[in-house]
Amino acid sequence: MNKTAFLIFDSRGSEIRHRSGLTAPDPFIYLQPEGEKPVVYFSALEYGAQKEALGRLKNGVKIERIDSSPPVALIKILTKKNISAVKVPPSFPLEIAKSLEENNITIEIYDFEAERARKSISEIDNLAEAQKINETAFSLIYKILSESKIKNDRIYFDNEILTSEKMKMFIAKHFLESDYSNPEGIIVSCGKQAAQPHNEGTGPLLPNQTIVVDIFPRSNKTGYFGDMTRTFVKGKASNEIKKMYSAVEETQKKILDSIKIGDKCADVHQSAVTNFKKLGFKTTKKEGFIHGTGHSLGLNIHELPRLNIISKSIIEPGMVFTVEPGLYYEKIGGVRLEDIVAFLPSGEKKFLNKFNQSFIIP
Amino acid sequence: MNKTAFLIFDSRGSEIRHRSGLTAPDPFIYLQPEGEKPVVYFSALEYGAQKEALGRLKNGVKIERIDSSPPVALIKILTKKNISAVKVPPSFPLEIAKSLEENNITIEIYDFEAERARKSISEIDNLAEAQKINETAFSLIYKILSESKIKNDRIYFDNEILTSEKMKMFIAKHFLESDYSNPEGIIVSCGKQAAQPHNEGTGPLLPNQTIVVDIFPRSNKTGYFGDMTRTFVKGKASNEIKKMYSAVEETQKKILDSIKIGDKCADVHQSAVTNFKKLGFKTTKKEGFIHGTGHSLGLNIHELPRLNIISKSIIEPGMVFTVEPGLYYEKIGGVRLEDIVAFLPSGEKKFLNKFNQSFIIP
Repeated sequence: MNKTAFLIFDSRGSEIRHRSGLTAPDPFIYLQPEGEKPVVYFSALEYGAQKEALGRLKNGVKIERIDSSPPVALIKILTKKNISAVKVPPSFPLEIAKSLEENNITIEIYDFEAERARKSISEIDNLAEAQKINETAFSLIYKILSESKIKNDRIYFDNEILTSEKMKMFIAKHFLESDYSNPEGIIVSCGKQAAQPHNEGTGPLLPNQTIVVDIFPRSNKTGYFGDMTRTFVKGKASNEIKKMYSAVEETQKKILDSIKIGDKCADVHQSAVTNFKKLGFKTTKKEGFIHGTGHSLGLNIHELPRLNIISKSIIEPGMVFTVEPGLYYEKIGGVRLEDIVAFLPSGEKKFLNKFNQSFIIP
Repeated sequence: MNKTAFLIFDSRGSEIRHRSGLTAPDPFIYLQPEGEKPVVYFSALEYGAQKEALGRLKNGVKIERIDSSPPVALIKILTKKNISAVKVPPSFPLEIAKSLEENNITIEIYDFEAERARKSISEIDNLAEAQKINETAFSLIYKILSESKIKNDRIYFDNEILTSEKMKMFIAKHFLESDYSNPEGIIVSCGKQAAQPHNEGTGPLLPNQTIVVDIFPRSNKTGYFGDMTRTFVKGKASNEIKKMYSAVEETQKKILDSIKIGDKCADVHQSAVTNFKKLGFKTTKKEGFIHGTGHSLGLNIHELPRLNIISKSIIEPGMVFTVEPGLYYEKIGGVRLEDIVAFLPSGEKKFLNKFNQSFIIP
């Protein structure tokens, strides 16, 4: 009898963590033969250490010890269990795939990510907890900008020029103290930099310009992310900036109010596009509203479905989304506002954080 | 004319970073057709942001912009450039590999890691810089343990019970302030936990027991790692612990003194094994000297070659190694000492850090 099994070979990836509850410094094996309980296999060296982490092992998952290295053990395990076909994630390492094929095991790529699209209550609780840390981080950022002074076209905090790098340091320390990690790529960008949505920012933060802060702490305990963006101006905002900010604020509110189960993700994005047009904000290849309206998140900062023009998904119970419209013009700067909305498995709509700070800080 | 090319498809991996100098939040393409200059391809959205990071682009690498998503663009680029065969890393994502094969492109797995085994002077400088941060971290740890008081079989720092978690927090903050990141998995383990080499440690640090601290900061700027381990006892060390410590210290010194270009990596490990035996320390499957003697490191914390029994490598100029013998007995605890030795491209042997603290802290 030849069986099929779900197979993941990874160390810290979201697929293996979601299915097993575990991560490890070196790759380990997750195997779930059809109709059987899943098993994770650890090398002898890791086994002792991982036993301590057993509290994180998901209900119903067994743990077993292997004596050879995971790639060698893998072939033996599959042979012993009569498994002739495996379903693996798209990122499955090619080298392992080739060794399986040499042993006449059929490989099919399986979309493990799709099964993460509908979150459980405890997953949504994890996201909400991470978002609480983001709220306290923004209170700190607000306090720093409030206590700062403007002198000679620079912002001074504690008598030192406030830079993107320093602000990121304050944020990272706050996450650290909250038992959250600070993944690469958080954004504190200003002026022309802020007009590029993915620019992480560098150098002095400037008064009277837009400062975009986009931060996404990850819980050391659960692995789940928060994701929140605010835009500030220290000093005075020009009328152009104020208009831009109002347009983004209005568009975000509109989406947050209207988004509901059954909506097509592409339509949600289109309604943001339409609203910006109606308000007179033009979009070209480089300027305007040049990214999607939002994305799901969980053990990864970006998960499917996305709220964008090419999405074919429909919003279902258990799905969560960032709602983060933005406007970007090189001569004015950038504005983006991002919050998370969740649809509980029961169907109830829940905002995971509140929007509560004024954007201009005198 | 059909050409071969080196191809990497990744976002933050060491292969693409080593070849291009760059990392990005989303996967990008690195392509080096035979006899041509390498090119990295970025999507329109990333291009603007990455232009800012151009300072990190390696000499001789070109950067180009693509209009479709990287997997779609990849096939187009290969077709346009008449490339019919690619050499990819072992971790190359299976899904992309399948789409290349459907387009009749031959795939060969290429060992990109092997070309990183011999480091340049500037890479060794990066490692030395990271190791300096480890030295200052150990000064801090030493200070904390020195200023701590023992009460009721607990260690108190600042009137609070000193735990593994708190010590890790002090270390992480120190790394953060030094512009280094604190990867998952650093170890501050005590007593029975310390007797498991990969146990990361949890709960109160105990007096009169071995405390193993194994930390590996990564430079935010260069991406290179440091790696250093020290073992401490706060309070009094038993004779058993003292003997174990001396054996590890002597063995480490012996290896550090004798290791040289031309040595077989397996022999270096064997001489550590022999020395422990000579000193009367027995090794079983679970106790004694139960791991390798060391490993190379660079953009990854663990790189090849390794100083272990199955290595077939010979030490060459440009190679770097941790030397980290250890002893582990459940009833006594664990002792490990780890430092880095480098062989410069010129052949000169260089220690990247100094060993200078007493292990018993009264």
